[in-house]
Amino acid sequence: MTAPAKDTETRLNDVDIAAVAGLASHITENPEVADTLWSASVTWTGGFRSEASIREFAPSASDEPHGLGGTDTAPNPVEQLLAALGNCLAVGYAANATAAGIDLKGLRIDLEGDLNLTTFLGLAAGNAGYSGITARVHIDTDADSAALAELHKTVTSTSPVGHTLSRPVPVSIELV
Amino acid sequence: MTAPAKDTETRLNDVDIAAVAGLASHITENPEVADTLWSASVTWTGGFRSEASIREFAPSASDEPHGLGGTDTAPNPVEQLLAALGNCLAVGYAANATAAGIDLKGLRIDLEGDLNLTTFLGLAAGNAGYSGITARVHIDTDADSAALAELHKTVTSTSPVGHTLSRPVPVSIELV
Repeated sequence: MTAPAKDTETRLNDVDIAAVAGLASHITENPEVADTLWSASVTWTGGFRSEASIREFAPSASDEPHGLGGTDTAPNPVEQLLAALGNCLAVGYAANATAAGIDLKGLRIDLEGDLNLTTFLGLAAGNAGYSGITARVHIDTDADSAALAELHKTVTSTSPVGHTLSRPVPVSIELV
Repeated sequence: MTAPAKDTETRLNDVDIAAVAGLASHITENPEVADTLWSASVTWTGGFRSEASIREFAPSASDEPHGLGGTDTAPNPVEQLLAALGNCLAVGYAANATAAGIDLKGLRIDLEGDLNLTTFLGLAAGNAGYSGITARVHIDTDADSAALAELHKTVTSTSPVGHTLSRPVPVSIELV
């Protein structure tokens, strides 16, 4: 773990305050900059295994547990989804705590999701996805509870992955 | 890449046909087995960096690009979300192709998502998440187009991550 920097004139929680503020003012002046496109490419590697490539980073592996017919060599896609939500919330807390002058000593987010396999296995039509997801956020800080409640409200109302999961997103899957 | 096994009596596409069929019949007889709970734990490591831990697997890193105030050491959460969708679709194609007797020579899924940063940056209320996601599926197989169209229909109607993204999911984020 990298200890948060304490030079609070330019950095807090090891976040570059000026860079984040600069991006916000840049977008205020140039609204078209706010429209971003993200991408990933997944290659199947046999069985239920695959690898996801994102920009220049090393591919990350995916598999299913033995109980679902996989070889259990890596987290599965629905676990990866929970991880993405937790990582997104971590960015949200770090960014907004820093903006509010809150020094984070530690932050851990435990995530759970309920999923019924019936539809995935082709046994009935219906919802194959999560029926509900819970994230429990543990923050170690000296900030008071009012400041934390305000931070929490800001993070949950501005989370890209949180909103993607809680709202219906048009997903187009095309065979090309 | 692991070459798919060709022993089609028990395996096709390196998928254990009996294991998958066995799970389906087990759930048909014991419907409560279909209810599964998945989890992940994310630890913030300073700045916009965090690590996600899933079961016994090595933690995977998350960061933001320099342009968003990060240190660009790993894919960011919205990219990870696209990867999870691609990995999930890969499992779906492998499982359902195998069930249909389709031999997959190769499978690649390219994913893109549009996201406007205005809400994430706190500049306006609204949707901080993806406004739309596209997955383009490239399949290398000798199967005919009718079989592929049927496979595609089955996969898209049974994808856990696909359904999670395309439907509104109750997401509870709790400060504990």
